[in-house]
Amino acid sequence: MLVDDKITEYLAKAAAGTAVPGGGSVAALNAALAAGLTEMVANLTVGKKGYEAVEEDMKDLAGQAAQLRSTLTAAIDQDAEAYTEVMAAYKLSKATDEETAARKQKIQEAIKQAALVPLEVARNALAVIDLAGRAIRKGNKNAASDGAVAAMNARTAALAALYNVRINLSSIEDDAFVEELAQEVKVLQNQVAAKENEALAYVQI
Amino acid sequence: MLVDDKITEYLAKAAAGTAVPGGGSVAALNAALAAGLTEMVANLTVGKKGYEAVEEDMKDLAGQAAQLRSTLTAAIDQDAEAYTEVMAAYKLSKATDEETAARKQKIQEAIKQAALVPLEVARNALAVIDLAGRAIRKGNKNAASDGAVAAMNARTAALAALYNVRINLSSIEDDAFVEELAQEVKVLQNQVAAKENEALAYVQI
Repeated sequence: MLVDDKITEYLAKAAAGTAVPGGGSVAALNAALAAGLTEMVANLTVGKKGYEAVEEDMKDLAGQAAQLRSTLTAAIDQDAEAYTEVMAAYKLSKATDEETAARKQKIQEAIKQAALVPLEVARNALAVIDLAGRAIRKGNKNAASDGAVAAMNARTAALAALYNVRINLSSIEDDAFVEELAQEVKVLQNQVAAKENEALAYVQI
Repeated sequence: MLVDDKITEYLAKAAAGTAVPGGGSVAALNAALAAGLTEMVANLTVGKKGYEAVEEDMKDLAGQAAQLRSTLTAAIDQDAEAYTEVMAAYKLSKATDEETAARKQKIQEAIKQAALVPLEVARNALAVIDLAGRAIRKGNKNAASDGAVAAMNARTAALAALYNVRINLSSIEDDAFVEELAQEVKVLQNQVAAKENEALAYVQI
C-alpha cells in the first residue's frame, strides 16, 4: 500500500516516473493533507478560551474532516489500483475474436473505474475547501493559516483529480457515461477557484 | 524523524493539532512533493521519442529537482526541530537575572532559526515553480498536468512558508535582522502568484 510508505519513499516513487503513484494518487494525497489540516484547525479551537460559542461547530467540523481524511487517504491507493487494472486489461490476450471482445470490455470497465475514483476525490476535495473556509472563519485565529494551506491543497487536489477524470473520459466509448461525467466535471471545475477564493478571503496568507 | 513516518501517520499527526508537524513542516512537504513531481515530468521525457532535442535539458532539470527534493525533504524535520528549540528555550529557568538574560538570548536565537528555515523553504519552492514551468513547456506533453500540480504545490509551499517567516519575525527584537528578512519576504511574496500563472499558462489543468 502506498499509504504505508514512508514520506521519503512515496516522494521517491513519484519522482521516478513509474506508473504509480501517478497524478490521481498525488491528487488524493493533496486532498487528504487538506482534510488533515482542516481537522488541525478544529482541534486547535476546541477547548480554547474565547471559542466556547463555536465549540460544538468545531467538534462537528473535526468529525467531518476526519471522515474525509479517511476516505481520501484510501483513494491514494484506490487511484493507483484503478490504473493498475487498466494496464492489466490491456495485457489480456486477443488471440481469438471472443478474447478480443472480452478484452475490450474489460478495458472499458477498468477505464470507467479509473474515471470514477478521481471524480469522487474531486467531490470530496471541494467538500474539504468548504470545511476549511468554515474553520478559517470561525476557528482559532492563530491556526487560520493552516486552514488556508488546507484550502490551497484541496484546490490542487480538485483540479488534478478533474484532469484525471477528463483524460480517462477520452478513452471511454459509452457516450451516456461520458456525457454524464463530463457534465459533472464542468460543474465542479467551475467551483474550484471561487471556493478557494471564498475560503482565503478571511485569512492573510 | 517525520519523514520516516508512513503517509497515514504524518497525516494523523498533522490532524491532531499537536505542536509538530505544524504549518512550516507542511509547507516543506508541499515543496518536496512539488520537486518530486517536477522530476517525474523530466524522467517521463528522457528517452522518449520526439523529445531528443530536450534530452540534455531534461536530465539537467531532473538533477536540479532531485537536489531540491532532498533539501526540501530535510526541511520537513528542520522546521519541526526549530519549533521544538523555541519551545525548549521558553522553558529555561529565569530564577536569577543572569538566567533570565540567558533565556531571553536563547529564545531570540531559536526564533531567528525558526524564521530562517521557512525562508529557505520559500526560496526553494519558488525555484521549483520555475523548474516545473520549464518541465511543462519543454517536457513530455502527457505529463504536463503533473508539472501543473507541481507548480500548485510549490505555490502553496511558498505562501505557507512565507507566512511562517512573518509570524516568527513578529517576535524578534533584532531590528536589522527583521528588516532584512521582511524585505526578502515581500519580494518573494510578490513573485508567487505571477510565477504560478506563468507555469500554468502552458497547460490546461
